[in-house]
Amino acid sequence: MQFYGEAMTKLIAQLAALPGIGNKSAQRLAFHIIDLPQEKAEALAEAILQAKATMRYCSCCCNLTQEEICPVCANPKRDHSTIMVVEDPRDMAAYERTKEYHGVYHVLHGAISPMTGVGPQDIRIRELLGRISEDTAEVILATNPNVEGEATAMYIAKLLKPLGVKVTRIANGVPVGGDLEYVDEITLYRALEGRREI
Amino acid sequence: MQFYGEAMTKLIAQLAALPGIGNKSAQRLAFHIIDLPQEKAEALAEAILQAKATMRYCSCCCNLTQEEICPVCANPKRDHSTIMVVEDPRDMAAYERTKEYHGVYHVLHGAISPMTGVGPQDIRIRELLGRISEDTAEVILATNPNVEGEATAMYIAKLLKPLGVKVTRIANGVPVGGDLEYVDEITLYRALEGRREI
Repeated sequence: MQFYGEAMTKLIAQLAALPGIGNKSAQRLAFHIIDLPQEKAEALAEAILQAKATMRYCSCCCNLTQEEICPVCANPKRDHSTIMVVEDPRDMAAYERTKEYHGVYHVLHGAISPMTGVGPQDIRIRELLGRISEDTAEVILATNPNVEGEATAMYIAKLLKPLGVKVTRIANGVPVGGDLEYVDEITLYRALEGRREI
Repeated sequence: MQFYGEAMTKLIAQLAALPGIGNKSAQRLAFHIIDLPQEKAEALAEAILQAKATMRYCSCCCNLTQEEICPVCANPKRDHSTIMVVEDPRDMAAYERTKEYHGVYHVLHGAISPMTGVGPQDIRIRELLGRISEDTAEVILATNPNVEGEATAMYIAKLLKPLGVKVTRIANGVPVGGDLEYVDEITLYRALEGRREI
């Protein structure tokens, strides 16, 4: 690698440190960047600094935003008494795309995971508790349907129940458009358990 | 996407424009960058600008370098009468790793490809012709063993033959460590054709 010169080696190392980018991809990206016109390389570097400098967390729901309060929290038409708890801004974006949810969100920025050393104090649970008031009608736990997400949902439910808040969890079941044959046993069981009359 | 704010949208667009990075990966990278400590984000942006500013092409062999002449061309111990022609600095690095080649290189930065509109004038063939002198003993064509690489090798061979230079092409054959069962027919045929007495 040293072969290409110091600046190239440094750039490859920086790119390879990004998630999901191995050494080969980093090399390919570095060559691509070297071959970019000067203004495009500058635009890329500028976008990194600009995003890093201006993006921050909404002081209410911890979503990523450029303002003090994110567009969802600032929208008076949303139902502020219903809070959906998600792990990630991307999960929030996914629910926004459904256009069917009209409440507000709370972004935890992670899930409790003893395996990787993430405890309750490392994610935005404290901020969630601070938002709960007598106006809060329901907290919907929409953390991921995996071990960490379930544990996080259970932990939060235990904290909220004593406050007298209605706490719900999104349903498990077979995904729409999926094929029963390829669905795992636990999901099939949960889908059966959660069956509804039609 | 607009959902996250302008700076984030811009960063995602910039990252998605890189080769091999789709929209989802770009989003994931952008979130990672936002979460980096300030100095690490700055180091990444700096590495891009630094590499773009200092890397250039060797004035002799067109390899990427930070100097006027790359380390290989500047090395008096290399055999300057033998020139290996490769498509890419990465191909050159691959041959350097064999530690078995002691001549110098010429990097074309591409291959002739009418399909994508790359003609002979778009790659560094002119620079190669300019390097050929009466001291040149052999030109080894090590372009890729695909349609574009073969066409490029043929084109260069036709230009060099009239100059009285010995022109060779790297051998086709079964890869070392490979399994005959999985080798394609053309490679098997070439390996047979190129058989040597042992």
